[in-house]
Amino acid sequence: MLPTLLQIPPTAYISKMNLLPHLSSKKIILASKSPRRQQLLRGLELVFEVRTKNTDESFPPELSGQDIATYLAKAKADAFQSEINENEIYITADTIVWINDHVLNKPESREEAVQMLKNLSNNRHIVYTGVAITSIAQQIIFFDSTEVYFTQLSEEEIICYIDQYKPYDKAGAYGVQELIGYIGIERINGSYYNVMGLPTHKLYDALKAFR
Amino acid sequence: MLPTLLQIPPTAYISKMNLLPHLSSKKIILASKSPRRQQLLRGLELVFEVRTKNTDESFPPELSGQDIATYLAKAKADAFQSEINENEIYITADTIVWINDHVLNKPESREEAVQMLKNLSNNRHIVYTGVAITSIAQQIIFFDSTEVYFTQLSEEEIICYIDQYKPYDKAGAYGVQELIGYIGIERINGSYYNVMGLPTHKLYDALKAFR
Repeated sequence: MLPTLLQIPPTAYISKMNLLPHLSSKKIILASKSPRRQQLLRGLELVFEVRTKNTDESFPPELSGQDIATYLAKAKADAFQSEINENEIYITADTIVWINDHVLNKPESREEAVQMLKNLSNNRHIVYTGVAITSIAQQIIFFDSTEVYFTQLSEEEIICYIDQYKPYDKAGAYGVQELIGYIGIERINGSYYNVMGLPTHKLYDALKAFR
Repeated sequence: MLPTLLQIPPTAYISKMNLLPHLSSKKIILASKSPRRQQLLRGLELVFEVRTKNTDESFPPELSGQDIATYLAKAKADAFQSEINENEIYITADTIVWINDHVLNKPESREEAVQMLKNLSNNRHIVYTGVAITSIAQQIIFFDSTEVYFTQLSEEEIICYIDQYKPYDKAGAYGVQELIGYIGIERINGSYYNVMGLPTHKLYDALKAFR
């Protein structure tokens, strides 16, 4: 097992703590394969179910930055449109890495992963996460952005990281909560959890307002 | 030095990741009771041992901010001075929460914890972590600082958090990696891991330079 920082609250607490009592009769569904998002939602002490579906992750080429993230969060919700039941609330999200006015997707090869980390090295980029909260009656869409500043990474550090952590499921070829985030990120400006995959404070606020 | 990229077999590093080979004959000792610091050091993929000692955490009253953190990191190292062996490297650290020109320590009662979180609510504070790396021959002392911005916390959120997470071992009565960090922190400016207890990127750089 690779080290992971997030502490998952013991299950005993989940049923006691309820800062969102108006949602207690609702079934919350996280429609995401990302284990990071599942951890983050557990960190909010919500009881939820995971349902996933393969969705097309393409987007209109004229979109940029935050609009790509919110477009894809909504597209992921749309994929469940015909299945949403009365008491269900779906949470969908998309995280993108935005650098020099273009998006870094998930790397498709080792070479592409190396190239992405070379681009991020000694550079600033922005992570946007778009989120959609969707029920039969309501949909809230929002995003958060975080600036991330990488130090100068050596080729050895890049290769060590890629071969050990295999970040092929991660936009921009890195996980902030993995080795490269420990040694290579000197600072962020914004929400750390947004970089991991969910802006938890904004999600909590949106759920407070969701009826 | 590594050979060029394509000559490296992908599995070569998997079981023997070592970005700090000059320390491989050294015994690294983390002199800290904090489980967060142990997690963070594991995140750097270092093999280490934990040794702890109760040390006096008082400091001269004229010190402020970063100087308190580095003073206490050094004091924690000094406590081991007579025991350091030839090949050992001790890592000691101290994290303080600094708000409106004063320090928040670990809360000694529920009331004090509530009061601390009320102070932090809807406010900015700075987290300083001082670190000392100490061997028989050398000592490096440094610090990092991170600005943390809390949202407005309700009394219910504060009390739920304190009664459930019991943050009595934490400066400022909160853990950034716990519920209150998920719902209550809107952004940070600096290193997230510094807020948790160790500025991992600076520690890594210092260890690279440590002989």
